[in-house]
This record gives sequence, C-alpha cells and structure tokens, in this order.
Amino acid sequence: MTKESSDLYPVARLAAAQEATAAAGLDALLLTPSPDLRYITGYEALPLERLTCLVLPARGDAFMMVPRLELPAAEHSPASRLGVEFVAWDETDDPYAVVAARLGKVGKVGLADLMWAMQSLRFRDALPGAEQVLAGTVLRELRMRKSPAEIAALREAGAAIDAVHAQVPDLLKAGRTEREVGADIAEAILAAGHVTVDFVIVGSGPNGASPHHELSDRVIQAGEPVVVDIGGRMPSGYRSDSTRVYSVGEPPAGFQKYYDVLQRAQEAACAAVRPGVPCEEIDAAAREVIAAEGYGEYFIHRTGHGIGLESHEEPYIVAGNTEPLEEGFAFSVEPGIYLPGTHGARIEDILICTEGGGERVNHRPRELVVI
Amino acid sequence: MTKESSDLYPVARLAAAQEATAAAGLDALLLTPSPDLRYITGYEALPLERLTCLVLPARGDAFMMVPRLELPAAEHSPASRLGVEFVAWDETDDPYAVVAARLGKVGKVGLADLMWAMQSLRFRDALPGAEQVLAGTVLRELRMRKSPAEIAALREAGAAIDAVHAQVPDLLKAGRTEREVGADIAEAILAAGHVTVDFVIVGSGPNGASPHHELSDRVIQAGEPVVVDIGGRMPSGYRSDSTRVYSVGEPPAGFQKYYDVLQRAQEAACAAVRPGVPCEEIDAAAREVIAAEGYGEYFIHRTGHGIGLESHEEPYIVAGNTEPLEEGFAFSVEPGIYLPGTHGARIEDILICTEGGGERVNHRPRELVVI
Repeated sequence: MTKESSDLYPVARLAAAQEATAAAGLDALLLTPSPDLRYITGYEALPLERLTCLVLPARGDAFMMVPRLELPAAEHSPASRLGVEFVAWDETDDPYAVVAARLGKVGKVGLADLMWAMQSLRFRDALPGAEQVLAGTVLRELRMRKSPAEIAALREAGAAIDAVHAQVPDLLKAGRTEREVGADIAEAILAAGHVTVDFVIVGSGPNGASPHHELSDRVIQAGEPVVVDIGGRMPSGYRSDSTRVYSVGEPPAGFQKYYDVLQRAQEAACAAVRPGVPCEEIDAAAREVIAAEGYGEYFIHRTGHGIGLESHEEPYIVAGNTEPLEEGFAFSVEPGIYLPGTHGARIEDILICTEGGGERVNHRPRELVVI
Repeated sequence: MTKESSDLYPVARLAAAQEATAAAGLDALLLTPSPDLRYITGYEALPLERLTCLVLPARGDAFMMVPRLELPAAEHSPASRLGVEFVAWDETDDPYAVVAARLGKVGKVGLADLMWAMQSLRFRDALPGAEQVLAGTVLRELRMRKSPAEIAALREAGAAIDAVHAQVPDLLKAGRTEREVGADIAEAILAAGHVTVDFVIVGSGPNGASPHHELSDRVIQAGEPVVVDIGGRMPSGYRSDSTRVYSVGEPPAGFQKYYDVLQRAQEAACAAVRPGVPCEEIDAAAREVIAAEGYGEYFIHRTGHGIGLESHEEPYIVAGNTEPLEEGFAFSVEPGIYLPGTHGARIEDILICTEGGGERVNHRPRELVVI
C-alpha cells in the first residue's frame, strides 16, 4: 500500500460509511465487487459468480465474505488494512446463508448499486424480512464529495487523456478507417498510463451525429469533421473522459458556424459552475446558448455526468436534478450539436467544483482542430 | 450482419425464448445489457446507467427500451433484424414507468442474471405486483446447449488462445517480472484476434499457489514453475480460457511428481465427458486421481465452469451439480494442485460435449513446458 493509495482509500472511510448507514436507518450495506466496494476498501475485487461481499452493519463489526480461492488476493489487497474479518467460503458452501446467519434479523439493507440480480435475488431469499434499497442512497453523499487525493487522481487522469488527444492529429488521416484510428488511440490510452480503455469513439462525418457511435469500418474522407471521445481507468481506479472535434482538412460549409455556438455553450456551462448552483442550471446554461441560435432540437442529451471510480456516476447534469453543487463534486460538461445524417460535434471537459468556481482537469484547446 | 453472425445469433432465438418464458410460467423477460441480451438479439449494448432493456412478454410483441442517444447504435446492431419495436426515451422520461404501462399487470418477471440493482429495484418499484426471478431460469437451457455456430466460435477462440500459449516460452524469462510478461501476453491476446483481454494470470513460484493471483511485480527466478491462465473475448462474443504451466529452467524437486498426478487427473476428467454424465462426476473423476495420491486437500476449487458469451456460466463442474451433460454443453476442465507458499499447477482446456465424448478446443501440449 503506497502512501498515495492510502490517501485515496483512507481506512477512516469504513467508519464514515458505517455512520452514514446508521443515520440513513439501514441495518447493513452489502457490497459486492463494484465501485462501491472499491471506494470503501480500495479492493478491486474480480466480478465473479462466486460471492465476494463486504457486509457492513450499522452497528458492530464488518466482515467480508471471500471465496476461498480469492483469499490470497483479498489478503494482498488494501482491504486487509481495515481490520475486517475475511470469512472464506468453500465451493459447496452457501455464502448467502452465512451472511444471513451472521446478520440476524435485519429490516433494511443497502445493495451495491451494480450488484447483479443473481446476487440480489439470493440475498432477497436469504433475508426474507429485509427491504432492499440501493447502497447509493447512503454512499452517494460520500462519493460525490471528492477528497483532495481523489481530485489529484482526477487531475492525473485528465493529464493522461490530454496527452492522448495531443496525438490524435497525427493519427487521423483521410483514407484511414475509424477502426484503424481507434486501435491506435486505444494503444495510446494505455501508453499514457491508463490500465484499461473504457471507450473510444471516432465518429467521422455522419457518424459524428450519433453521440455514442463507437468505431466502424467507414473510411474517413477529406473535409470531414470527426468527433473523438475517449477515456480510460488509471491505476488509482479513477477515470478520464474528454471529447474534442477534429476536421481532416477544411470543414464543410456551415460546420464552423454551429461549432462556434457549441464552444460558447460549453464555456457558458463551465462558467456557471460554483458551489450552491443546482446541477440543472449548468445544463440550462449550455442549452440556452444552443437554443438561442436555433440548434436546441439538435442537442439531444444531458450536459454531463459525475465521474470518479465510475465513468458515469452522480451527480448528473440534467434538467430536473436540483442537487446543488458542492466543493469537490466532479463531473463532465459536454454539450453537443448533432445534425442527423450530416455531422455533429461535442466538446467535453471534466470539471471539479471549487470554492472559486469550476476547475477543468482537461486543457487541450477547445477550438476546432483542423488537421 | 455477416452470414457468420446470423448463424451465431439466429432470429428464431427470440421466438424460442418467448416460448420458454411462457412454458416456465413467467409473464415477461426483462433483459438489460448482458450476455442474456446479446444471446437473444446479437446486440452488444453498452452497460450504462441509462436503461436499455428488451422486454419479451410470454405472449404478444417484444419491444426494446432504448435511450434516444443509443438509438443509432441499436438500429445498426443485429437487434434491428428481429422486428422488435425500439421505444426511444428522452433524458427526462421514466423508462421504467413506460415498461410498466406497456406490460400491464404481470405476476412474474425474469431479470437478466447480471442486471444491476439500480435497475432491478426500479423494476421492483414500477411493477409492484411482480415477483422477480432470474431470466437464467428460462434461458439457461437454451444457452447451455451450444449450436454448431457457437461451437465453431468456441473452436476459433480456442485456436486464438492456443496461438498465445505458443508464444509464452519466448516471453517467460528469469529476471522479468510477472507484470512485464503479462503485458506482453495481453498484447498477444489482442494480436491473436480477441477484442478484449479478460484476464492474464502469471503466477510464478509461490504465486502459482494462489489460483486467482493475477500479476505482481515479483521477479521470476530460474527454476520456478509459472502458472499461465489467460483468456479473452472474440469478435463473435465468445470467450477463450486456457491454462498451461511452464518452468523457467528445471523445476524444483517434487514439482514434477505432483504435476504428473495433475495431468492424469485432467485426462481422467476429460475422458469422463459424455452425454448423460452428471457434471459432478466430471469433478469427481479429477478429484479421485488427486486424492488417491494424497493431494486432495491441495485441490481447493471446482473442476470447471461453463463458457460461451461469458467466461463463467452454467454448467458448473462441481460437487452437488447433478445436471447431466448434453451434446453441445461447453465447459472448462481445470483441476489444480496448490502448495501454499511454495508453488502450484493447473491444466485447463475447454471441452465440448459431443455424442462421442469430450472434444477439446485447446490443443497445446499438456506436459510441463520446461523453457
């Protein structure tokens, strides 16, 4: 356990989560391998059909169910610092029954938000009196407020993905396919220090009008705008995510006009970030600029999503979300304009909400990059 | 949609799943992005917090909830062949309420086995009268019996991972760390045609005694056995998984003795495969050889797991599983012997149950490879 990871996954978090569990009126959290488990323990457990589960009761000692053959991995993980008993179970044991027997009578349990149905239904049957709610109802408040170490990890992730965007102009060429360019970008994401590639979107020409288009065998043509949205996971567990738009040669007529509108919208949304502002107002700040110029119907998604141990987590920057921003909240600001069948554009940075306003962790130029 | 993928994901599967749903007394299947969804539709949907869900009622027309911005991806996916209505929903809609309104009164629904709690609890609340069970109770019978196209895909995956094992002797050298070797193997897995690396285990010396050890910065020493267990996902969606043991120089005293026992155990288990034999008998066939030689307590896991669209799926080759093998079942046979703190060994092939017995899809030599 390095100093850095002790800061990222402090031992004190277990007690904070236990206190929040009691305060929320839950009897226990049940955390299977997921960002929730990693947040509390630092343990990046494999998501397997065999049950690994941190059981954190509102009162009393936590314990972790561990398949016998995962025990060495658990013992070598940061979870071993927590003073939590590891309960190893064998191939023919019923680990759900063990949890039920140890917990005794419980009225309400919080499940890891990403717990699989094959596990949640087993817990439902093993704990027939217990109402199931999401652990997120307890952990979201903790997870949304990033600590200084988490913010440092997000800055590091931002620098890593910026370094990849810096290479994109050398990779994007007319005559290459999106898939060829995407393969090079995926390599660059790993070379820049990420441990996994989360997504590589290379949307050329009309494909740029599909926000979640990934890669195709389409050959990139001269004079086409290309939306490049990329991200990955760093060794810290924290994620990067940034979008820039490139044009292979001079862009088509009309493109620069709405690109400039988009850039103003992204600036306006970033400028609106400060503690106390509801999430939906950041969305509105971007949307108003785009709508005022007549492109409102072409901005078909929310403005952003939280980021941390997950690429998409709370808070969501979307109409209807009245959650006020707080210092330490981290999220994307990524408005887009998409002309179906023609082309599209999106500009995305990750921001941290600080006392003085939004701090971007991505610093590549936001102007259209003409290659 | 190529001919190959039409064979892998035949349109008729939707009707077969609907019939099985009705026969099992379920009112509908709810399939979020998962191997279950891909099996029925061929659509490899992104696992996102926004709901994508195939709703397959026991009677009547299926439909698929699709976030508006995933609509182009869904329309370009194999799911578009199925004649299923895509119901696009916008950022501020409640897609769970839409499903509930369309389904009407339902008594029992089957959830994708890997559905997240953040989705299953929303469905529980939106469909308050409906008992939730696993879709696997319906789909397992279909998914376990691999079609000729699926068997061809598993053979192709087997050949790809065999090609990686063929390179391992050139990568494993005393003085290199497990992580360095693992990085080279990961590259080779992709170069061999996989689209993702599922896992890379390089367990050198004492790390070989931890079955799910992955990679560490431990420097491999001369005279050490190294367990290499690797697998990935092919463009077809189907998985590879194979383990071989290498020794960097002559192995330590005593190692070859139990390795030979292990090899006999793996052979015995493979030889026991034929239609009608219960899964647990394959496990017993391996375990008996190992126990008879006094190593029983060092074989600490089940003998194998099913494989297909998931690395681990049914059937599990484990004591207590009385499911009889059928033609088309695909699974691993991978006994191991692990001497804690010293070293360990595992030999793993993927087998298809055929009329005549077990057909291996992995063909690398199973003897200890001394480099």
